[in-house]
Amino acid sequence: MASPIRVTVWHEHRHELENEVVQRVYPKGMHTVMKEAIEEQLGQDVVVRTALLDDPEHGLTELVLAETDVLTWWGHMSHGDVADEIVTRVQERVLEGMGLIVLHSGHYAKIFKRLLGTTCSLRWREIGELERIWCVNPGHPIADGIDACFEVPQAEMYGELFDIPEPDELVFVSWFEGGEVFRSGCCWRRGKGRLFYFRPGHETYPIYYQAEVRKVLGNAVKWAAPASSSPYELKAKHIEETLSPVAKR
Amino acid sequence: MASPIRVTVWHEHRHELENEVVQRVYPKGMHTVMKEAIEEQLGQDVVVRTALLDDPEHGLTELVLAETDVLTWWGHMSHGDVADEIVTRVQERVLEGMGLIVLHSGHYAKIFKRLLGTTCSLRWREIGELERIWCVNPGHPIADGIDACFEVPQAEMYGELFDIPEPDELVFVSWFEGGEVFRSGCCWRRGKGRLFYFRPGHETYPIYYQAEVRKVLGNAVKWAAPASSSPYELKAKHIEETLSPVAKR
Amino acid sequence: MASPIRVTVWHEHRHELENEVVQRVYPKGMHTVMKEAIEEQLGQDVVVRTALLDDPEHGLTELVLAETDVLTWWGHMSHGDVADEIVTRVQERVLEGMGLIVLHSGHYAKIFKRLLGTTCSLRWREIGELERIWCVNPGHPIADGIDACFEVPQAEMYGELFDIPEPDELVFVSWFEGGEVFRSGCCWRRGKGRLFYFRPGHETYPIYYQAEVRKVLGNAVKWAAPASSSPYELKAKHIEETLSPVAKR
Amino acid sequence: MASPIRVTVWHEHRHELENEVVQRVYPKGMHTVMKEAIEEQLGQDVVVRTALLDDPEHGLTELVLAETDVLTWWGHMSHGDVADEIVTRVQERVLEGMGLIVLHSGHYAKIFKRLLGTTCSLRWREIGELERIWCVNPGHPIADGIDACFEVPQAEMYGELFDIPEPDELVFVSWFEGGEVFRSGCCWRRGKGRLFYFRPGHETYPIYYQAEVRKVLGNAVKWAAPASSSPYELKAKHIEETLSPVAKR
Repeated sequence: MASPIRVTVWHEHRHELENEVVQRVYPKGMHTVMKEAIEEQLGQDVVVRTALLDDPEHGLTELVLAETDVLTWWGHMSHGDVADEIVTRVQERVLEGMGLIVLHSGHYAKIFKRLLGTTCSLRWREIGELERIWCVNPGHPIADGIDACFEVPQAEMYGELFDIPEPDELVFVSWFEGGEVFRSGCCWRRGKGRLFYFRPGHETYPIYYQAEVRKVLGNAVKWAAPASSSPYELKAKHIEETLSPVAKR
Repeated sequence: MASPIRVTVWHEHRHELENEVVQRVYPKGMHTVMKEAIEEQLGQDVVVRTALLDDPEHGLTELVLAETDVLTWWGHMSHGDVADEIVTRVQERVLEGMGLIVLHSGHYAKIFKRLLGTTCSLRWREIGELERIWCVNPGHPIADGIDACFEVPQAEMYGELFDIPEPDELVFVSWFEGGEVFRSGCCWRRGKGRLFYFRPGHETYPIYYQAEVRKVLGNAVKWAAPASSSPYELKAKHIEETLSPVAKR
Repeated sequence: MASPIRVTVWHEHRHELENEVVQRVYPKGMHTVMKEAIEEQLGQDVVVRTALLDDPEHGLTELVLAETDVLTWWGHMSHGDVADEIVTRVQERVLEGMGLIVLHSGHYAKIFKRLLGTTCSLRWREIGELERIWCVNPGHPIADGIDACFEVPQAEMYGELFDIPEPDELVFVSWFEGGEVFRSGCCWRRGKGRLFYFRPGHETYPIYYQAEVRKVLGNAVKWAAPASSSPYELKAKHIEETLSPVAKR
Repeated sequence: MASPIRVTVWHEHRHELENEVVQRVYPKGMHTVMKEAIEEQLGQDVVVRTALLDDPEHGLTELVLAETDVLTWWGHMSHGDVADEIVTRVQERVLEGMGLIVLHSGHYAKIFKRLLGTTCSLRWREIGELERIWCVNPGHPIADGIDACFEVPQAEMYGELFDIPEPDELVFVSWFEGGEVFRSGCCWRRGKGRLFYFRPGHETYPIYYQAEVRKVLGNAVKWAAPASSSPYELKAKHIEETLSPVAKR
């Protein structure tokens, strides 16, 4: 039997401390709800811990990362407080094979921009409008169990242009009541690691309690888990010998 | 516990009947060796049957396909004998989610050209030269357990230009002793189905007995198995109602 | 100075003969309006002719295709009347480098399905609702001169799932008033040829008179024009000699 | 008539000052040879200047970059001496639409790693072996005029794994006499800018005098030049108004 996937739910955890609306929606913190969602979806196939911005080393010590198969990332108001050396540490682990799931306002996280190379900027509006999320890749493991579309009744709007590299695979596209569209579920590979961006999840709406969102979270964890033991090195390698004979010149 | 993946190994099975060299290398037929390789790799996670060109309906009845999660395809001298209606039947099953693994000379199979839309032509030379297969995507599930490269001691050469659409993911690239290169492991998605092309496997060399090739076969079966139960329809759908209100004009 | 791009505007031209609404909107036929749009956009850089379904060989003789750099395709009610041998002829010319621009209901044309390998099906609704087309790739040559979005005041709705292979490049995504989204501007390569699908263009609305749509048409013609004289062959090529020496075995 | 493409050839220019072999091969400096190659290929369609690492601001002032349509980049021994703020400046210009062509050992340049998000590491060996470069995308503008393959008689070997994101388009794959393969011509888009990596070009061999290499350089400059005037912003944009009416809640 396969070992359980080791997930670390990383959370900024500052809105909850400052904003009563967020406290009411997520009294235990958003990270707890995300942790419970993943446990609910994957049961014994997963073990989940959490790590917070204000933990030592943001909770992302060498040891924690070494024991993490998939990292989820939610940040918003304090992206700048994440230390660059921790970003580098996370990046290296992704390249070595750790999956990374970046959520909602994490589009502006240092680690996301670091891996993608673009600004990751977008348009946004916060009036609690309807979002309808369409699946454009129903055979994708992340879409498993998701219908042709599902609705988030009240959402912050994110609209194109979402400044990202062309996704390797596009899974979801959002429709917003106010008139915009957005590539809401995007997959990329970097090194040996898999990267998924998933748009839903604003702090003032109960989006992480919603069944479809939880389903996608669980699917994404499974998809992003390392799937190959093949060799990979972070550094260039000098080869002395040839594999086949070379003519003298 | 997950149900086993139901694999059908499809084989042309004509070279073995006509050519003594092939008989010596594959006395039980190439299909038997491929079947055993997949069983060896995946054990209880798989059930494998075979189907041959000269079986009724080429062994690919509606029922067989309905019970197939992943189909492997080896053909060479008799591509033209595969009935177009069976090709259409296989195509529809791929779109609905069945995985398809096309092997070696199957690059010229009707089903492969049908799904890709190009000629799938290439350069070739048959002098038993060395092939060295390099992994360019070590994090890919199909590369699991494969080293930086492996060798096939004697191979038919396939060289670029391989006339295929840009692969969604490129996993292997071959080096040939005589001077050519080839994109030897290519992934695409069509509808809900996953498609993998794997180059090694000429009928006059014992390539399907080789450990690395068998490993890739097993990995590819796991990768190509259906991974999503989300809805998909082969036909356009007329929608009467709107999901959101539309202004009168 | 570069030679002008030779464009053939192919049109089914049946709605105009049967439907008074279409006659009023396109009294000279949709093909004439598309031809004029391309001429308006590209001036001396282009020469445009038209070809109709009911012309001999659908107007797509060997000679016409040999003299065509970019073919645009509009069909709807009579896809089945296009002869398979002409589809094959067009396909081969695309592979050899001719650009192909498939418009609106052409998503169900035989040539489009032939090149893509999927059903190309979608959802649709015809109530004249608002469409807003967003650019998701502002650096793409086809998006040149197009703002962040533009509106088509009355459109037939096409909604996801649009059953196509993952586009090599996605340029436009549509928002529909009634609640759907659609990948409206998609690029692929097949052989040496470039393929662009552009959604707008229903026969009962004056969409091909609209400035942004005409702009995109002109851009797409420039983008799809052949851009490389490098060798390409439709058939597999047997190579006798090696380029580098091969060890005896 | 179109304005000429404004090219800046950026060069580290340190090997020439320290190494007699390099001085003999490139007595005027590699940058001069690259400049002349681009001028030779594109004539009046181009104006080329050079910029060197040891120029003030590495020759890449705000003004120079504002007047650059395509930047070519060659560096090797002194990647670490490029100031991070200049890297950021170049990155922003690429996102805004400037083309970037990274050559040979530039795979390890800060700007390349910054835009791609991976280590960009590889295997290497320097024994002057034969390289044969195969075209896998003959319809691509960068392949225009290039035959099925061409040879570099003596080259430094670069071998897979080349740790890069999946290229949007793969144009060339190299075969090396000693047994390796390499993805030698790779295209990506970042923001509005186009990025091309081209492998050939070691400082101790006269590779930039070779006709095919010069042809590719010229083609790449044309391909990478900005091709769209559509709007793009480096920063997220707050939208107050909706484009379509939103229901009260």
